Amino acid sequence: MSLIPTDSQRLVLHKRPERGPVTDETFSLESISIPDLKDGEVLVRVEYVSIDATMRNWLNPTRSYMRPVEIGEVMRAGGIGRVVASRAKGFVENDLVFGTLGWQEYWLGPAKHLEHRQTPRGGKDIDHLGLFGISGMTAYFGIFDIGRLKDGEKVVISGAAGSVGLIVTQIAIAHPKCTVIAIAGTPDKCAELEKLGCHTVLNYRDPNFRKAFKKVGLIDVYFDNVGGEILDMVLAQLNPHARIVCCGAISQYNAKTPYPLTNTPSLIAMKASMTGFIAFEYAARYSEATTYLAELQSKGSIKYEYHLLEPRQGERNGLGRCTEGMEVVYQGKNYGKTLVKISGNQQSSKL
Amino acid sequence: MSLIPTDSQRLVLHKRPERGPVTDETFSLESISIPDLKDGEVLVRVEYVSIDATMRNWLNPTRSYMRPVEIGEVMRAGGIGRVVASRAKGFVENDLVFGTLGWQEYWLGPAKHLEHRQTPRGGKDIDHLGLFGISGMTAYFGIFDIGRLKDGEKVVISGAAGSVGLIVTQIAIAHPKCTVIAIAGTPDKCAELEKLGCHTVLNYRDPNFRKAFKKVGLIDVYFDNVGGEILDMVLAQLNPHARIVCCGAISQYNAKTPYPLTNTPSLIAMKASMTGFIAFEYAARYSEATTYLAELQSKGSIKYEYHLLEPRQGERNGLGRCTEGMEVVYQGKNYGKTLVKISGNQQSSKL
Repeated sequence: MSLIPTDSQRLVLHKRPERGPVTDETFSLESISIPDLKDGEVLVRVEYVSIDATMRNWLNPTRSYMRPVEIGEVMRAGGIGRVVASRAKGFVENDLVFGTLGWQEYWLGPAKHLEHRQTPRGGKDIDHLGLFGISGMTAYFGIFDIGRLKDGEKVVISGAAGSVGLIVTQIAIAHPKCTVIAIAGTPDKCAELEKLGCHTVLNYRDPNFRKAFKKVGLIDVYFDNVGGEILDMVLAQLNPHARIVCCGAISQYNAKTPYPLTNTPSLIAMKASMTGFIAFEYAARYSEATTYLAELQSKGSIKYEYHLLEPRQGERNGLGRCTEGMEVVYQGKNYGKTLVKISGNQQSSKL
Repeated sequence: MSLIPTDSQRLVLHKRPERGPVTDETFSLESISIPDLKDGEVLVRVEYVSIDATMRNWLNPTRSYMRPVEIGEVMRAGGIGRVVASRAKGFVENDLVFGTLGWQEYWLGPAKHLEHRQTPRGGKDIDHLGLFGISGMTAYFGIFDIGRLKDGEKVVISGAAGSVGLIVTQIAIAHPKCTVIAIAGTPDKCAELEKLGCHTVLNYRDPNFRKAFKKVGLIDVYFDNVGGEILDMVLAQLNPHARIVCCGAISQYNAKTPYPLTNTPSLIAMKASMTGFIAFEYAARYSEATTYLAELQSKGSIKYEYHLLEPRQGERNGLGRCTEGMEVVYQGKNYGKTLVKISGNQQSSKL
């Protein structure tokens, strides 16, 4: 039996960032005493937290699909961890759980906020935050339910080397007769995407990008992770009945001034749609997505990667790398899913 | 038996307008000899043509839902008319027909391009171009198929006094428990819309419009006839799962520079959609819409109006008023559907 820890470090929202990136002042590190567990509660050691582009939105005091994180509140983040103590039925020490665990060493709360996770033989715990986590769910329901992808269509994916994009891209490649155009921001990412079998890979930082994009021609489905200028370019190249899947707008979340779109009237002429969605709303159908993705993975049609930030040498946890994780995502330094390992090495379960 | 006319006047596209409104140079008047009818052809005296905001788009040499009108080609327009001669089965003199008759005195072509129309007792021929024409079809399929209007929702309609908007507004008022906000551009139009029973009527030219619009609160369905600034304001006030019906963008068709939208990322946060459509695609279901609209009309729930431009005194037809008709629409001088009466008074059927 492990000892129950007595204190926990955590990052709370200290000062909302203005338009633009988070700063050193945005979060502050706190240490708290862990209270005794009440009936129905579980104490979880946080092992990995997911870093997602949308987290920047949670820091704005504006109406969105979730309430903003409040000043003084632990920064919200999806995570996986291990139960270290439980006064709740069905949860025992060392259980692997998924939940909104936040940027903290230990999560304490009612068991109803946790979900059990099982890692299949040969699988990785962190896949519960990636391929089979919210990224995989977002990719699957986005491309099929919102994008209504059909055989033989031309699909463009922006942010194609990102946590969601990398899955969407490989779903599209595996889909019968589709032509897949992936957009990313570095030569390395582009090289990886080419290896996966994309028909065209474009680097949006390339000076000839606009010209190259025109050659892509008319588009049936655009899976948009970035918004802004690329979205406006796509709007000018829609096929009739095209679907734009509005998944993210990472180019806009930190922008000092939003990019002005001018081509939306083409939605009318092309009888096309732009539709936003949040994967949480498909929770009742997650197993459908998981089954599909696991099958693609087992066939070798999905290769998924993680950009992992581990605790710095000499630090007791990975909290010191969380804001860095957000920078990684916003600067597009990640290939695949960005995660921060919170728990120190001596505590971690197998990857 | 009427005499078969020997010549016909028509307006052809002479010079494409640059960005901005049509000019005196855009169209030119021609007179042609009417050729002999071939087998399967019908000659139609054009009585009324429909003036629609979308016509401006047909003059641009750009890809759209229809090919552009070519230089030298008769300006495209939906119209109704009477058969004056026929070598086609099923078409006889004086039949009322609907088709893309164009800005001309006489239409000659294969019968397959025409549809018979019957005006019910007490009805008006021109309703085939308005309430039961493409405006009615656009309103019905837009609000129900694209907008998926549900009981109790808050609906905003821009261009609410226009050909389509006036129908949508009254459908929404008649729909159970909906809150209907109508936007128009003159005090007179606003007064008429208030009489119809809108819950709120806003004049977008009013200096307090922005402030008043904020008070409208969160929106479930936006039926967009105008695009531009009002669309961007709506995007900032969406309820979760809101639907924006992209019907028209009249504020943009003549604009020298397009209005830059900045609020589209809210589509993601609100899981909302913007969807374009063209009513032609619902042709197989027109009778469903006609039945619905006729029932609302018979209950007194739809009052429809026409802004009619007739031939000027001393002119043999109404062609001289066609470009004026377009100006009427773009300057928002019409309440309801704008039509030009092409045939001279001596030739016309009853309104």
